[in-house]
Amino acid sequence: MQLSNRSPISLYVQLKDLLAQDIRDNKLKPHDQIPSERELCEKHNLSRTTVRQGISLAISEGLLYRIQGKGTFVAEAKIDQGLVRLTGFEETVLGRGLTPSMKVLEAQLMTADVQITSLLGLPFGSDIASFKLLGIANSTPLVIFHYFLPADLGKDAIGLVKSYEKGKGWFSFTRYYREQKNIDLGVARQTFEASVANQDQADLIDIPVGSALFKVTSIIYTRHDKPIELRHAFYRGDRYKFNISRDVIS
Amino acid sequence: MQLSNRSPISLYVQLKDLLAQDIRDNKLKPHDQIPSERELCEKHNLSRTTVRQGISLAISEGLLYRIQGKGTFVAEAKIDQGLVRLTGFEETVLGRGLTPSMKVLEAQLMTADVQITSLLGLPFGSDIASFKLLGIANSTPLVIFHYFLPADLGKDAIGLVKSYEKGKGWFSFTRYYREQKNIDLGVARQTFEASVANQDQADLIDIPVGSALFKVTSIIYTRHDKPIELRHAFYRGDRYKFNISRDVIS
Repeated sequence: MQLSNRSPISLYVQLKDLLAQDIRDNKLKPHDQIPSERELCEKHNLSRTTVRQGISLAISEGLLYRIQGKGTFVAEAKIDQGLVRLTGFEETVLGRGLTPSMKVLEAQLMTADVQITSLLGLPFGSDIASFKLLGIANSTPLVIFHYFLPADLGKDAIGLVKSYEKGKGWFSFTRYYREQKNIDLGVARQTFEASVANQDQADLIDIPVGSALFKVTSIIYTRHDKPIELRHAFYRGDRYKFNISRDVIS
Repeated sequence: MQLSNRSPISLYVQLKDLLAQDIRDNKLKPHDQIPSERELCEKHNLSRTTVRQGISLAISEGLLYRIQGKGTFVAEAKIDQGLVRLTGFEETVLGRGLTPSMKVLEAQLMTADVQITSLLGLPFGSDIASFKLLGIANSTPLVIFHYFLPADLGKDAIGLVKSYEKGKGWFSFTRYYREQKNIDLGVARQTFEASVANQDQADLIDIPVGSALFKVTSIIYTRHDKPIELRHAFYRGDRYKFNISRDVIS
């Protein structure tokens, strides 16, 4: 691909398209450093301003990321998760040829606050089992999960979850309900919110404070419409996107 | 509701629950200033630290927002939009008893970049009609829309869109395809990403730079699977959430 100032496309957009092409063709791989501004100017006979505009556009489109004082690098393609079928973390990560594992940050019984008891249909002040887990793909932390289960349902999971340390695979609550508790599962009601990382979240999943996060709140019901799990999941915004296909009706 | 340090729930969580209750009961309305820290301490016999923790928790849960140097205020409930059925901006806003209108930021023919032509299946360097619109509910800007249509389909919309000024209602592209162009619409393929507002976006929808945004990219197809519209929409993260209900399968 040759850049041309006779094209109806601006030169900086052509430069961005060229970088995108090199990423698609795997000439530039995730986390590779791209050539310096000077090298790009010389190679393509462009002004410094044009090169900077092209790189800024590529960053704003999520193709590249910049680390202050270090340089500009190729971003990883986002994990693209379908919204119609509910996909577990394990399946999503395995589907990309990566190894899922978890870090257990918390697994204990505690007293629920009003919000949790009301969402789970429990009496005020009930005990619940609370699990805070980090979802890891190979060695990269991607998602913070926080599960709340009624104490009688969740207490047997505490020991099981604790036995999963980093690198030992993934504990599936869905499997636990089915296989250990003989529960027929029904629907999950989910809410998607856009949010930004606070200090705690940033530290846990290794992103700068203020980065974009997806917050997904789920309530899982049995086949008989009894709520059995409240789950908050915080997905790295730079690594996840969700997709859906719908009929245009109105 | 009386706060009690004999409860198994921490006092600051009880305070947050009490504020949430007052908001649900409409004792505190959106954008009302809440009582000062001192007033809350005295009224509920709490320490300053406890009051601050309770308010911080309420802010982190999106119940309240703080303006530096001014005080703490009640947040508006988010617009909760279903993901299964495609709902237009007009319908969403009308459904909440508000008046939809738009501000036209751009409506013109231009040369498409490679990304747009490839997504719309057009020859490289094709002309397209580009529309940049601000979606407004009453007087609050909520969404930035950017539409790209093949030039032959979109050119008649340029004059129509320009006739919609702020306060004159909402131009529906879906209606335009159906009624002016006799197109049978098929599916919309959509991608949801979490993002943060840059300076331009922040200025347009009146939020601080770095605030959470939903970026929704849609491609609209005819009944015969021909792509006719690429749309980027940026929704205020503090005002929108999306919901879906799905069967738990695996």
